[in-house]
Amino acid sequence: MVSAAKPASNTGQIRLGMVGGGQGAFIGAVHRLAARLDGHYELVAGALSSDPDRARASGAELGLEPERSYASYQEMAKAEAKREDGIEAVSIVTPNHMHFPVAKAFLAAGIHVICDKPLTSTLADARKLATLARKSDRLFVLTHNYTGYPMIRQAREMVAKGKLGAIRLVQAEYVQDWLTEPEEKSGNKQAEWRTDPAQSGAGGCIGDIGTHAWNLASFVSGLETVSLAADLDRFVDGRRLDDNAHIMLRFRAVGKDKPAKGMLWSSQVAPGNENGLKLRVYGTKGGLEWQQEHPNQLWFTAFGQPKQLLTRGGAGAGEAAQRVTRIPPGHPEGYLEGFANIYTEAATAIRAKRKKNGKIPKGVIFPDVEDGLLGMRFIEACVKSSKKNAAWVRL
Amino acid sequence: MVSAAKPASNTGQIRLGMVGGGQGAFIGAVHRLAARLDGHYELVAGALSSDPDRARASGAELGLEPERSYASYQEMAKAEAKREDGIEAVSIVTPNHMHFPVAKAFLAAGIHVICDKPLTSTLADARKLATLARKSDRLFVLTHNYTGYPMIRQAREMVAKGKLGAIRLVQAEYVQDWLTEPEEKSGNKQAEWRTDPAQSGAGGCIGDIGTHAWNLASFVSGLETVSLAADLDRFVDGRRLDDNAHIMLRFRAVGKDKPAKGMLWSSQVAPGNENGLKLRVYGTKGGLEWQQEHPNQLWFTAFGQPKQLLTRGGAGAGEAAQRVTRIPPGHPEGYLEGFANIYTEAATAIRAKRKKNGKIPKGVIFPDVEDGLLGMRFIEACVKSSKKNAAWVRL
Amino acid sequence: MVSAAKPASNTGQIRLGMVGGGQGAFIGAVHRLAARLDGHYELVAGALSSDPDRARASGAELGLEPERSYASYQEMAKAEAKREDGIEAVSIVTPNHMHFPVAKAFLAAGIHVICDKPLTSTLADARKLATLARKSDRLFVLTHNYTGYPMIRQAREMVAKGKLGAIRLVQAEYVQDWLTEPEEKSGNKQAEWRTDPAQSGAGGCIGDIGTHAWNLASFVSGLETVSLAADLDRFVDGRRLDDNAHIMLRFRAVGKDKPAKGMLWSSQVAPGNENGLKLRVYGTKGGLEWQQEHPNQLWFTAFGQPKQLLTRGGAGAGEAAQRVTRIPPGHPEGYLEGFANIYTEAATAIRAKRKKNGKIPKGVIFPDVEDGLLGMRFIEACVKSSKKNAAWVRL
Amino acid sequence: MVSAAKPASNTGQIRLGMVGGGQGAFIGAVHRLAARLDGHYELVAGALSSDPDRARASGAELGLEPERSYASYQEMAKAEAKREDGIEAVSIVTPNHMHFPVAKAFLAAGIHVICDKPLTSTLADARKLATLARKSDRLFVLTHNYTGYPMIRQAREMVAKGKLGAIRLVQAEYVQDWLTEPEEKSGNKQAEWRTDPAQSGAGGCIGDIGTHAWNLASFVSGLETVSLAADLDRFVDGRRLDDNAHIMLRFRAVGKDKPAKGMLWSSQVAPGNENGLKLRVYGTKGGLEWQQEHPNQLWFTAFGQPKQLLTRGGAGAGEAAQRVTRIPPGHPEGYLEGFANIYTEAATAIRAKRKKNGKIPKGVIFPDVEDGLLGMRFIEACVKSSKKNAAWVRL
Repeated sequence: MVSAAKPASNTGQIRLGMVGGGQGAFIGAVHRLAARLDGHYELVAGALSSDPDRARASGAELGLEPERSYASYQEMAKAEAKREDGIEAVSIVTPNHMHFPVAKAFLAAGIHVICDKPLTSTLADARKLATLARKSDRLFVLTHNYTGYPMIRQAREMVAKGKLGAIRLVQAEYVQDWLTEPEEKSGNKQAEWRTDPAQSGAGGCIGDIGTHAWNLASFVSGLETVSLAADLDRFVDGRRLDDNAHIMLRFRAVGKDKPAKGMLWSSQVAPGNENGLKLRVYGTKGGLEWQQEHPNQLWFTAFGQPKQLLTRGGAGAGEAAQRVTRIPPGHPEGYLEGFANIYTEAATAIRAKRKKNGKIPKGVIFPDVEDGLLGMRFIEACVKSSKKNAAWVRL
Repeated sequence: MVSAAKPASNTGQIRLGMVGGGQGAFIGAVHRLAARLDGHYELVAGALSSDPDRARASGAELGLEPERSYASYQEMAKAEAKREDGIEAVSIVTPNHMHFPVAKAFLAAGIHVICDKPLTSTLADARKLATLARKSDRLFVLTHNYTGYPMIRQAREMVAKGKLGAIRLVQAEYVQDWLTEPEEKSGNKQAEWRTDPAQSGAGGCIGDIGTHAWNLASFVSGLETVSLAADLDRFVDGRRLDDNAHIMLRFRAVGKDKPAKGMLWSSQVAPGNENGLKLRVYGTKGGLEWQQEHPNQLWFTAFGQPKQLLTRGGAGAGEAAQRVTRIPPGHPEGYLEGFANIYTEAATAIRAKRKKNGKIPKGVIFPDVEDGLLGMRFIEACVKSSKKNAAWVRL
Repeated sequence: MVSAAKPASNTGQIRLGMVGGGQGAFIGAVHRLAARLDGHYELVAGALSSDPDRARASGAELGLEPERSYASYQEMAKAEAKREDGIEAVSIVTPNHMHFPVAKAFLAAGIHVICDKPLTSTLADARKLATLARKSDRLFVLTHNYTGYPMIRQAREMVAKGKLGAIRLVQAEYVQDWLTEPEEKSGNKQAEWRTDPAQSGAGGCIGDIGTHAWNLASFVSGLETVSLAADLDRFVDGRRLDDNAHIMLRFRAVGKDKPAKGMLWSSQVAPGNENGLKLRVYGTKGGLEWQQEHPNQLWFTAFGQPKQLLTRGGAGAGEAAQRVTRIPPGHPEGYLEGFANIYTEAATAIRAKRKKNGKIPKGVIFPDVEDGLLGMRFIEACVKSSKKNAAWVRL
Repeated sequence: MVSAAKPASNTGQIRLGMVGGGQGAFIGAVHRLAARLDGHYELVAGALSSDPDRARASGAELGLEPERSYASYQEMAKAEAKREDGIEAVSIVTPNHMHFPVAKAFLAAGIHVICDKPLTSTLADARKLATLARKSDRLFVLTHNYTGYPMIRQAREMVAKGKLGAIRLVQAEYVQDWLTEPEEKSGNKQAEWRTDPAQSGAGGCIGDIGTHAWNLASFVSGLETVSLAADLDRFVDGRRLDDNAHIMLRFRAVGKDKPAKGMLWSSQVAPGNENGLKLRVYGTKGGLEWQQEHPNQLWFTAFGQPKQLLTRGGAGAGEAAQRVTRIPPGHPEGYLEGFANIYTEAATAIRAKRKKNGKIPKGVIFPDVEDGLLGMRFIEACVKSSKKNAAWVRL
């Protein structure tokens, strides 16, 4: 049951750097916790802020050696590439618009990239980055962290094994309330950059959390979105990016089955919702329901049978979930454990890459640059559709 | 707390007739239970089936006097209108296509009508019926029964009182699974007529349950739907009417507030869902969440405050809910009690109408022919939109 | 699915009288709703209050003929026994101390008795009443109404069929909060008599709701309580009867199985609890969990298998539950429907008794005087144990 | 919000050793994950198994230097005490009977002790250990890990601040099902030692999980248990220790308030329960409810007000919870995070101790040897009471 938590030390910890994530940031701290949990990584370098003073202070706080706490990512990429004990991988946890230049620099320096989502702030950047990543022999890991939850792996496996029959319906939502009021005007850094097109890109709520819901829906259902119709809103006066999105989805038909349909709702202005990411998938033979706030449970109904509550590590949990399960059923694993699973999967892949022609072991799963590119297409399609009065737009 | 349950006998029970609802029917039995619960009605006449033998047998089973168990609704309307002790009201519980002619006949006979939803099977019929009902001094009650649930009344009152601020979002769904397979080919009468355009009208799932969800969303939010985009599907091979509907909604702006938006999902092919009618409403100041399968609870969040679980009869329940509450909090009332509330509201109105120029007392609420006409417009708009590739259609 | 709701009219409604339940009472109104729901009874006589004025006014409100609205139960028993159209059954809904004399009078008058619980206010009375009821050919129905819930019938059937294996553990609780403060001093009639030993008997909370929990535990598990240890408290200053009870239970061994054990908690001073009646039963092969506030659901786990959520009317519902089910799964039935099931079961029995040597049909279940006597033994044992510092006391 | 997760590196990681926790163990891996999460500890030495081969292999797997992977805890204590870079703290994760000798050896060697619960396997050992720990200037941390959950800290703070008024009732339970069958005979090491009196001590289920529930009840309520009555069972044939416990509790009165009462149920034979640790506390003014399987939520009811769902990090979360909260509300933290909070609290204390006369900062909370001694008294009292037919026994 504890394969994911197996210590890495016999093969040596992975030397990790970080760009972004200095004092006042949120997601950087999460990445560090996730990298640390299973013991596979050692954080040894960073360009933690675009503000040199803050970068230095943050580095000191994190115990980086002063010479490896860099004032800029360019400098860091260059210096680390030269060191014999240079970082093997970098975590990019900046606002979206910096993902592309930073990732480009580190790939060029021969360093694996672990990048927060969405991939970039523009589709053009995303395309360029995908081209670079495809050419590179370095790994590109995108932290669509929800794909790391064991019961999401379970759901995906059940769909793949045909437990639901042919999929007909996918209902996804990611709903928050923290932007119900103009939080970006109150000095909240997180709100500021997320609602700023220059830093976030064309999508607000849809880029910040809608992509997560859509990625998860795709990951579990295995379906390809053909087209969508999106109605985006900015409910808060003066807000520059969408804070609510209503989307209808159409998927590519699988074989002779009728094409599946879906809906996606993403919002940051729905009071009473904290991180309400929910996924429901229904097919000809059964249905699945999952929600992030109670991630250790997965509802499964075989049509005509009583509803079952599958639990992480419990009866009915299959191989895909067990791989990424640390502790017994009834002891909840949470957000950080799911996030850590992405880091641990990446660690396995990175170690495999240490060997010449090393292959990533079977069963290792992590979102990559292709998922990131698709996510950018999704955001662009949503924005485009919304501008055309929510007309259908091909992805 | 027991106003709704107050016995009616001191003012005399209302003499009720029924059209449809004979052996093998479903909703007729529900209407009878609902009419009986609070003691306001006495069932004394019926044309319980279009099959004369079944009509007779059903009448005997229900204890009707043989002479008042009619072979046809026309005969019944005529005969009852002549009797001094003739029925004061008729419940129409036939398949949809019969609602119009039956209602017309009884209105013409000067008898109040309590009619199941949707109003008719075609919008043309609905318009005619609305015209007739408006001209008539008889009551027309449409049993959108979910509006009778106490916590739905509570939700409506809270919205009206501004507890949620300006409404931004309405999320409604009504999801079942009983038509996941071609049940209509297995001899199930309920499935047969509901999937038959000649009996049901242009809407399948959307007419059967989607209208309920939309009616409820309108009832609680107080919002007027301006336009919608609907993507209807028939997932089951050979099915003649939709069994799934994805809908985006746009509401009319209230004052200077931005117009609200909504989504509605209705399905009969989602395994694991029994009668999953859910409503969520969010505004600038707060949010509400309710589901029919646990109807005695209403979640309320004032933005920035902890979530509250309001209960029927419990702390925080207001006047609108208390009016239609029979028993103390923690003792669940259910579907029949909610349905009975419509009958009891109607009884109060019918008794008021016994007096010349009698006015319906303040606070009495029931859906009427206007709601029914709106519902038919909703169905028609959905079908029209779907045929146009889910384009926006005005209601 | 609608057998319980089948109309009774072809065999004639049962003429019912009521003692107690006048204006200001609670449980009387519940009995009337329950009697009315399925159409088996017609309320035609009453001695609705010990106060003659209130009795008269209450009778008028309920539409009783003035001559059958009696000033005393003695008069009523005598007069109704003489009438050709006299009542066939009487509902006794007075405070506890009146159950015995009233029941005695009506049994003597040859009238079936439907009596609220607990059976009496003293064990001595209970014994006398049991003796009378056993000798009588009239029915004695005790409204332990929770045994009427379909999923409780389901649970009982599953235990009886061995789905749980040999029972080891029974956990029961009935928790409220309405007596957290000295409500009996605020003019609340319900609180007054329930906390008055002269009207309630020796048990306060334990008699009012503890007996329900214990009766339900016995009903579902089929186990006989051998002995118990009870720690009763009066947390509110000046309260004369217990408002909280902690109880450990030991059951008689079944065959060679080890004897089962149990716990029971009953309270009226636990803020946040409305009518928190819960039952959990565990055996060598599986477990069941049920709570009254969501009565349409029953959790079942076969050891080593995923947890299942059984629903009223849904997949997995057996014959015992279906008999008392009116409407489809997902449309909640509630407290009144469960209560009505007791009345409807009684109606079937009463009709059988109309025939000479008529036998109660197989499958009909209702609590009777023996259950009532056991309940009184339970209350007495609890009080006795508590006085002895919660020592073990045989039942 | 991230104080608990603050990196420790600027003050230097704590050098940690571990006794027990080699291959095949469970809780050792949990301790390592918990120690690692916030980055405060570096595992550098171990005596990971009493089997020297397994000890060596386990050490290698964990990346310990061979010379610091010891064959015995005695050797380890001696050697580490001598090293300049010797461990500062040791985690003891052996079966219970080894806690005493191991803890004694390390305290004697001047090394802080972090010990799994229960404190020892006998009360005599516990008393000796408490004496040693009190005399020592080294810290003794007992990992009653559930006290680390943020919402448990929240609950404790609310009780302490009087939000519930005077406490009247405490209901605790810890229910599992994994020992429903004779698992100890199937080769499961965890089951073997837990059901072996020589390794576990006098308590089976009551020592393994009952102590957790009781510790948590005491921690949150702040109440001192005066006496208890316990009915222990061994339901599985041949089992040598209790697998189920029913307990009634009496607490010491606080001031002039009536003494509170409680119940505790602990079981390992209740099918359908994974790690069902639940706590409910009720007072004169309000009530709290919490369950470990959904640890980010805490129900609070102020008497007469609607029920509130408090969430970790959400509205209404106080200082005590925020201190140990890492990530935003709606992103679940779980068992490992709660466990890590104990390690992180301990780290703060250990660092304070690095300075001469260093004081543990205010607000730091962890269970210590006194809690452990109380827990052993609790187990002994339960066993003693049960042997006396569940008579009341003073603690």
